[in-house]
Amino acid sequence: MLNIAIIGAGRIGAVHAATVASHPRARLVLVADPFGTNAADVAAKFGARSTTDVADVFAASDVDAVIIGSPTATHVDHIIAAVRAGKAVLCEKPVDLSLERVDACLAAIAGHEDSVMIGFNRRFDPSFAEVHARVLAGEIGALEQLTIISRDPAAPPASYIAGSGGIFRDMTIHDFDTARYFLGDIVSVSAVGQHLDAAIEAAGDFDAAVVTLTAASGAVATIINSRHCASGYDQRLEAFGPRGALEAINHLATSVRYSGAAQTSADGPYLDFFLQRYADAYRLELSEFIDCVTAGAAPSPSILDGRAALILADAATLSARTGETVAVAAAPEPVVSAR
Amino acid sequence: MLNIAIIGAGRIGAVHAATVASHPRARLVLVADPFGTNAADVAAKFGARSTTDVADVFAASDVDAVIIGSPTATHVDHIIAAVRAGKAVLCEKPVDLSLERVDACLAAIAGHEDSVMIGFNRRFDPSFAEVHARVLAGEIGALEQLTIISRDPAAPPASYIAGSGGIFRDMTIHDFDTARYFLGDIVSVSAVGQHLDAAIEAAGDFDAAVVTLTAASGAVATIINSRHCASGYDQRLEAFGPRGALEAINHLATSVRYSGAAQTSADGPYLDFFLQRYADAYRLELSEFIDCVTAGAAPSPSILDGRAALILADAATLSARTGETVAVAAAPEPVVSAR
Amino acid sequence: MLNIAIIGAGRIGAVHAATVASHPRARLVLVADPFGTNAADVAAKFGARSTTDVADVFAASDVDAVIIGSPTATHVDHIIAAVRAGKAVLCEKPVDLSLERVDACLAAIAGHEDSVMIGFNRRFDPSFAEVHARVLAGEIGALEQLTIISRDPAAPPASYIAGSGGIFRDMTIHDFDTARYFLGDIVSVSAVGQHLDAAIEAAGDFDAAVVTLTAASGAVATIINSRHCASGYDQRLEAFGPRGALEAINHLATSVRYSGAAQTSADGPYLDFFLQRYADAYRLELSEFIDCVTAGAAPSPSILDGRAALILADAATLSARTGETVAVAAAPEPVVSAR
Amino acid sequence: MLNIAIIGAGRIGAVHAATVASHPRARLVLVADPFGTNAADVAAKFGARSTTDVADVFAASDVDAVIIGSPTATHVDHIIAAVRAGKAVLCEKPVDLSLERVDACLAAIAGHEDSVMIGFNRRFDPSFAEVHARVLAGEIGALEQLTIISRDPAAPPASYIAGSGGIFRDMTIHDFDTARYFLGDIVSVSAVGQHLDAAIEAAGDFDAAVVTLTAASGAVATIINSRHCASGYDQRLEAFGPRGALEAINHLATSVRYSGAAQTSADGPYLDFFLQRYADAYRLELSEFIDCVTAGAAPSPSILDGRAALILADAATLSARTGETVAVAAAPEPVVSAR
Repeated sequence: MLNIAIIGAGRIGAVHAATVASHPRARLVLVADPFGTNAADVAAKFGARSTTDVADVFAASDVDAVIIGSPTATHVDHIIAAVRAGKAVLCEKPVDLSLERVDACLAAIAGHEDSVMIGFNRRFDPSFAEVHARVLAGEIGALEQLTIISRDPAAPPASYIAGSGGIFRDMTIHDFDTARYFLGDIVSVSAVGQHLDAAIEAAGDFDAAVVTLTAASGAVATIINSRHCASGYDQRLEAFGPRGALEAINHLATSVRYSGAAQTSADGPYLDFFLQRYADAYRLELSEFIDCVTAGAAPSPSILDGRAALILADAATLSARTGETVAVAAAPEPVVSAR
Repeated sequence: MLNIAIIGAGRIGAVHAATVASHPRARLVLVADPFGTNAADVAAKFGARSTTDVADVFAASDVDAVIIGSPTATHVDHIIAAVRAGKAVLCEKPVDLSLERVDACLAAIAGHEDSVMIGFNRRFDPSFAEVHARVLAGEIGALEQLTIISRDPAAPPASYIAGSGGIFRDMTIHDFDTARYFLGDIVSVSAVGQHLDAAIEAAGDFDAAVVTLTAASGAVATIINSRHCASGYDQRLEAFGPRGALEAINHLATSVRYSGAAQTSADGPYLDFFLQRYADAYRLELSEFIDCVTAGAAPSPSILDGRAALILADAATLSARTGETVAVAAAPEPVVSAR
Repeated sequence: MLNIAIIGAGRIGAVHAATVASHPRARLVLVADPFGTNAADVAAKFGARSTTDVADVFAASDVDAVIIGSPTATHVDHIIAAVRAGKAVLCEKPVDLSLERVDACLAAIAGHEDSVMIGFNRRFDPSFAEVHARVLAGEIGALEQLTIISRDPAAPPASYIAGSGGIFRDMTIHDFDTARYFLGDIVSVSAVGQHLDAAIEAAGDFDAAVVTLTAASGAVATIINSRHCASGYDQRLEAFGPRGALEAINHLATSVRYSGAAQTSADGPYLDFFLQRYADAYRLELSEFIDCVTAGAAPSPSILDGRAALILADAATLSARTGETVAVAAAPEPVVSAR
Repeated sequence: MLNIAIIGAGRIGAVHAATVASHPRARLVLVADPFGTNAADVAAKFGARSTTDVADVFAASDVDAVIIGSPTATHVDHIIAAVRAGKAVLCEKPVDLSLERVDACLAAIAGHEDSVMIGFNRRFDPSFAEVHARVLAGEIGALEQLTIISRDPAAPPASYIAGSGGIFRDMTIHDFDTARYFLGDIVSVSAVGQHLDAAIEAAGDFDAAVVTLTAASGAVATIINSRHCASGYDQRLEAFGPRGALEAINHLATSVRYSGAAQTSADGPYLDFFLQRYADAYRLELSEFIDCVTAGAAPSPSILDGRAALILADAATLSARTGETVAVAAAPEPVVSAR
């Protein structure tokens, strides 16, 4: 039984709280959030303690592990504090919007990197995970092309966009991790950004993008993103190799199909939004975290995976601005010594 | 090269004319239809001779084979005349609405049954034929359950219904042949008729029906019919056995799918109507006929197949009226001797 | 918060225990099972009390409601005892294999029928429920034809078959309820049973069947059953009306599709078995039960629905044996007065 | 009735010959091919004259129009000769592998560009054409992202690769035209080439590629190519806009689906190869050509469309080699005056 505290009682924190509370091998003991009654509200629902002082989490002797779901800008500080307090950490993506700060974090926790898991939840989606497992098992031969389509149902408000770090660090970051999960080391990145939404352009960001990643193996991943999708949360991928292809198509609420005068075999909209689409993934991610912490094993995706995805996001940002393909070191090591 | 005449220049006759004209091993030489300029119109389009006197067909020395697409009531007479004139015959279904007249026909052409092929075109539909071939090849094991869904896009006028012989002899007759094609001899028939359309009920017929057929093998076929279908011409079947199932789903005009706010992956309507859905089947049926005539082989489906389907239609009609399952002789032989 | 006891700690009892334990408005207080440590094992897992004496359930003052998941033969006795003890009841289907005993039960609880809900869980399956709701909303017009395909992945042992009451009372009972759920009162039943499996035939039962039900409305339902299905638990239905059709197709574990040299767009096997396929349904059924009990409302499906389904099963059994369509009273009332 | 001659009696010439012969408004009068009995063989099959001297085509007074299906290197010369002889021209893609030669051709036929149609047959594929028409009709709003997946079943021999002009001029050229067909003018091109096949790399070419095109409108097209595909000829596209998406999925030989223990709803392989997949497109392309010539209208796709696709192929070739995005003039006009 692992005793878990949650930092951040917003939307994603509440999801983690529910997931922990219903997990047979975890116990939710503490919820921390500096704002209003957020922590108290979430904690009450699951019979846990609450606090508005995050430092209480690190000081609590009955807390084995911490899930960090607070704003991105606080991730690094909380990771460092948690690791120093001897707690295992599951931190939401991205680690930070700044590679420099990520490297500072790595320097600060040097020797304890294996205490930290990053919440790239899509690796745990049963459909994506099945494609990954079958590719690994050789079912389609060596992976040659990976196509990821990832579109949000609707754009966040411009205020969110402004502090998001841009589409590549905020949204594509998941797809960069998925690409690395399937293809391993990426050696070059080429990106095109689109300005279809004037409000998002005014906020200094792209609202749609296409990114092409070349792997050291010679395989290529294509990522197609949009901040909106009329059909719901469009989350697909296709792995293609010499012996065939494996695709994960969208998930729907039910298996109902309508046929009438104008249309036949019409499914309903895609599950909308990530809390629904990836509900299983959050649960399985937590199980993996608990398994690793319990067994003393290094969790995956690691903080180095978080760093590698950020490097790709930075490269895509640069490529979209310059029109040039950006080379990435094949196995980027954190520049710990440089600090 | 087979010289072919067509009797009946209505809708189905025109289809056969076009199919013959474009067939590499056939030549359309004569079109006969007693009504107005029907024959002349069709013949002119394909550079053939025409006549309003059907007797000209049987007398023409350059006619090797006859396709009969005239009204059902004339089939038997034309078959007999053609066979007596030494012509091969491809006759549209049904042979006749009366089993007695079919048996009279068989008596009249005794010894020449192999000159006659009956146009159960669905046996030649590439999708149904593929399911049949794969079942025969043992892919799903011994066939246990066959489900046929067959719905017309819209009901014919009540005037047609009145002379149609009833839904089982007019519409289900195709499905009875399909059931026999897959299951072999049928031993019992149970049918339920529906009165959903007042005009058709007033014409003395059912407008929808469900028929259950038990085969000598123990397999069961279920046929679900309706005189209307908002989505188009609904033509499906599923063969189920111990090792799996094979289904033929509906055919569409294009492969386009629409996704939007209310629906996703929505196909277009089914191909509508039989001339479109079974265009390939008519062509392949003709090829089979030409092959058989050229090779001197007995064509299939034979006139005995036409007789067997009619027996099932009669049985279904009786069952729907009485609520009783009707037994059918396992291998019904025509009562030639009784004449 | 509803305090619930469970009678029967076998497979289905364990499912209910887990569903209750994780439900926000229910508390599992007691598990009863006369056999070995069954009750203790299940109770321990969820922190509930256990007993081997079922009478303890009815005597327990902290038990508001009882879920009966014990063998069918015990259902009636437990229903009567629970109702007499003032407990609300959710009883697994079927109420009993004997209509006489069901009527005896109804006589014994006369005036308290609304305390009992029958576990026809498929009404709560989100896909079937969506089809039902959209049909009710008039999306396809008046329902004309309902096709239910329901095949188990593999036959139970012959020992189970022997005491099951036969395929219609044991397996098709669910489909009879579904047919009534969509079509309302049924007026006639026609059934064909199949003997494809020698072991099941030796046990005196059919292993596959096709049943046709005619509703008072003129609509017809077709049920196609098999005790085995190579692809998994085959659970589909299609509702057809003048303006279109709504179908619920099979559920799969993931959304992965494989394409290769021999096959394309190949899904994985169907979810297998009912605990997986209907996991959501069990949860939603429990919610409905809790809602009804809490609000003092009559639950649905009621014990009269359980009785009506059994009448259809009896009629199908008779029809399959005699080959005759069996008429059913349009709105069968329990013969309470006859006692 | 249009009298047509065909230059080139190889694989594609034979397709055109059959299409012309079966077209109600065209007559095949002459087939020309300098090699062996190619022309005679094709001509005999359709009752046309033949010649080994291509000049006979231009001299024939009974030839209204010429279809050029000879090797790419001969296209320009035949276009010029045909136009000078007053014949209308339908020329297979690409016009030429050299932009300089295309511009020379345009200079030579200046004022008669409307006599020439280029055989980008995919514009006439009923599925792609339907998506195009529905996008134009505004069904999904302004087009934002177009995804084209185009994979050949198997790579051509290395000898063919060597003279093909490279994957972008030989294979992607079709997709460039499709992108322009949907998006209009393209302003920048970014391409990644893959070396997965050593034999093709030795021949100096890529065997797979991903190309990103940005349109003047801000829309982006992504093209994913491979020289091989185990499932057959993989030809899909998806148009995405603010109100939804329209996709054209692969075409199959039949509508049969297999379900068994390992897989369910498995379709057969994709139609293979272009003669099968685009059979309808070739027929409809010819109809459009005949309509335009008969009406004196400018055909589309025009030779300028052929030139524009080649410019994109050149840009992609450059981009794949340099890693830089290549800008393309928004509305490239042929440099006729420069000559």
